[in-house]
Order: sequence, then structure tokens, then C-alpha cells
Amino acid sequence: MASPTAQPGHVTLVGGGPGAWDLITVRGLRAVESADVLLTDHLGPTEQLDELCDVSDKTVIDVSKLPYGRAVAQEEINRAMVKHARAGRTVVRLKGGDPYVFGRGFEEVLACQEAGVPVTVVPGVSSAMAVPAEAGVPLTHRGAVHSFTVVSGHLPPGHPKSLVDWQALARLGGSIVVVMGMKQLPAITAALRDGGLPAHTPVTLVQEGTTQRQRILRTTLDRAAAEVAEGGFGSPAVYTIGEVAGFPASRTFG
Amino acid sequence: MASPTAQPGHVTLVGGGPGAWDLITVRGLRAVESADVLLTDHLGPTEQLDELCDVSDKTVIDVSKLPYGRAVAQEEINRAMVKHARAGRTVVRLKGGDPYVFGRGFEEVLACQEAGVPVTVVPGVSSAMAVPAEAGVPLTHRGAVHSFTVVSGHLPPGHPKSLVDWQALARLGGSIVVVMGMKQLPAITAALRDGGLPAHTPVTLVQEGTTQRQRILRTTLDRAAAEVAEGGFGSPAVYTIGEVAGFPASRTFG
Repeated sequence: MASPTAQPGHVTLVGGGPGAWDLITVRGLRAVESADVLLTDHLGPTEQLDELCDVSDKTVIDVSKLPYGRAVAQEEINRAMVKHARAGRTVVRLKGGDPYVFGRGFEEVLACQEAGVPVTVVPGVSSAMAVPAEAGVPLTHRGAVHSFTVVSGHLPPGHPKSLVDWQALARLGGSIVVVMGMKQLPAITAALRDGGLPAHTPVTLVQEGTTQRQRILRTTLDRAAAEVAEGGFGSPAVYTIGEVAGFPASRTFG
Repeated sequence: MASPTAQPGHVTLVGGGPGAWDLITVRGLRAVESADVLLTDHLGPTEQLDELCDVSDKTVIDVSKLPYGRAVAQEEINRAMVKHARAGRTVVRLKGGDPYVFGRGFEEVLACQEAGVPVTVVPGVSSAMAVPAEAGVPLTHRGAVHSFTVVSGHLPPGHPKSLVDWQALARLGGSIVVVMGMKQLPAITAALRDGGLPAHTPVTLVQEGTTQRQRILRTTLDRAAAEVAEGGFGSPAVYTIGEVAGFPASRTFG
């Protein structure tokens, strides 16, 4: 049901979508419009904040520019949310994609709850779905695939802190979407081949999806690492592995 | 980048989100507003069409009420999209969730392309993410889970037409979100236990998520089937299996 999501003394985490400003939800946009304090970072529609709404009467804080190291930064974001909410302001934390998909959103929710500050989450369109779509890649297709897995490629397969069984992933039978996995692409594609995925399995990689700098690479599991290097592709990028990544290319989005 | 998505002779597939009307994207809403012909079904924000926009000047066709059997229905939807586009109308196909996540969206895209009708896809917030969020369940959480799998539970594990290796899914190590899986819930939970998931693995089930009829069940893998039966839970529902489903309950959405 529709309900108010931004109010004084309250924090609203808003999923800003994959990048283009008009892929935020209507509920998310209304929360942003009614914010006194807007905490943004380099993800989502931040670059196009002026298209979203008039921000001249808002305090906009780019938390990616807080003068702290990476580990401390999340604590500082949490502290800033709580501080401004306690001062009676309507606080919106604008995040890329969906707050609960690799967005540390739950950490921010817990921080508010621990401080006794009411917090609401507005979901967003995840890059993990919208970015493959931008390249005409559907994550599911009747008769071809009944599941998809979104996986962080931050840690290499076999790393002691990795929580992913890449061999099991190779056997699962569905589409695979890797986010934050550019550095580990050679190791990840090798692990999936070791797990049994054929060398010719299609791969579609999208760099900076839904932005004007978007680049697309269509390749295969055995050639992906070499072609990414040759083409100079880099982060941020999302790559999809599986039959769907080889469907006829079509410009079907935006 | 933002770009026009609805124009005469053109079909736009719009992901309407999980149910609440204001969880459609801004781009999706604009496409709906500019449509001459709106093809809807029983999913997404269809029940709240009047909240979305003024539909008095539009031809609204509820394709779920087309007088055909299930198998024929998709062909009739495809035919209707193409027919109205060829008549020079601005056609929007409003779908639930995201068009490419178990939505048959790619079939509709192919039908348009085969007919030479330009087609655009506007992504949406998938129920697979937003509905667990409604129950305070994040699909990922740093240090706890590095992947999630969205799987159709339409076919039972071991069915000859099943494309899912449920044993591999049990070993993968991430959150599991089952959609369309109420009838097969006993078989699915049993298969995941056979695959090695512990009996006490948390399960959170949400029936009719984001609507006013929403009901939530928090249970475990070994007790889920019995509690769903006792509680009279039914479709449509989404259930999440894994550590995230056992995180402290909180009302964080809407």
C-alpha cells in the first residue's frame, strides 16, 4: 500500500535505481522531494540530482567524500543519519540500486534501530537486473532457465573469506549475474569452467550500464578474460553468464 | 540516460513493480501516462490503475480476461500488442515486477521484433526483492552472504522438465528466494534439506506482499510445510530461505 515514507526525525533509505534518474520509483522520488537532508554517494542517480528535484532548499551531503577511510566511512554515514534525524530533520539516504542488494542497507537500518530512530526502506530497481536488460539480456526465459543467481565477485573463488561455492553455482543451471567482479573475472570464469560450465557459454558484460558512458561486450566464458583486457573494460560493470546472455542482441531498453 | 519510451506505433513493456502503485519507476509512470492502449493483467499495480493516472482517455485491456486458455493467452497478448501498434497507437504493456524476471517479457519483445514493431523495456522493482524487504529481510548482508538466487518453484525438484539442480542450490551458500512455489513448498524444502541445508535454516514467507492483504510467516526449513498448511497460507507468495530470513524482524518498508 502507498504510505508516507519521509517525515521529521525519520530516516528513509531510498533505492535510487541503476543510474538513470527516472528509474527511481515514484515513492522514492517523493521521499527525496520531501527530504531536509539528503545523504548521497557516487552510486545511483546522484549525478542527476537536479533532474530528480529542486535541491536548493536541502542539505546535500555526499558521503563518499567524507574525510575518512573506507572502513570508517560506513560508521560515519550511520552517525550522520542518526544525528540529523535526532535534530528533527527529514533524512533520506539515497542509495544506488536496491538498498538490500549489496548496498549495506541492512547495516544502515540496524544503526538507526539501535539509535531508536525510525527507519523505512523504499526498494529500488537493482542494477543486477536492469543492467543486463539494457543489453537486451533477460535473466529468465520460459523453457530456457528457471533461476538466476546474483553474486558478488569481490573475493576470488577459494578465498578463505569467500561465502560462495562456485562449483555448485556452475551446476545450478540458471543465469549468473556477477557484480563487483571485474578484478576477479579471470579467476571467476576459470572456476565456473572447472565447475562444469562449457567454454562456449555466452557472457554479456555491461560497463557503466544505463549511463551515457555505457559499453557492452558480448563474449564467451573461455574468451571473456582476454577480451575484457583487450577492450580495456573496467569497473563498474555487471556481467551475465548463461544461455540468456547469448540471446539475439536487441536494443530494448531506454 | 533518460529517453522517451512511449510513442505512436511503438510498444513499451513496463515493469509495474510488486503491487503498490507508487513502486513503479518514474519512467514507467510516464510511459503509462502517455499510452493510448494499456494492456494489463492481474499482477503489479493494476488494481490501483486510477492512482497511477487518469485512464479515462485510454483503451484499457485486461489481458488476463481474454477468453482463451492459458497457452493461447500469451499469443493473444502478443497479437494485441502488435495490432494496436500497427494501428499507430502508443501501446504500453503493464506487467508486474520486472518484465525480465519470470514475466515472459522476452517472449513479448521477440513477438514485437518478429512483427517489425519497435519495442522498449522499462525495468521494474521485482517482487523477488521487494517482497522479502517488506518483511525486513535483506537478500544480502556483508559478512553473512555474498549471493542470492531467485528460483521458480513451479516444477517440483526432480521433475523431468525442471532446469534447477536443487542439491547444488543447497550447497551454493547464498540466500534463496522462491517465487511461484507454494504448491511445491513441501517438496522444495525437503530437497534443500537433502542437499545439506540444516533443518533450522530460517524461512520467511510473505503472502500478497506490499498489498493490504499481506501476511508474513517466520519459520524454519523443517517446519515450513506444516506451518504453511496450519496457517492456511496460499499463493501468491514469496519465500526466502537462509540466514537473512532469520534476522531480527523489523518493519522497515512502506
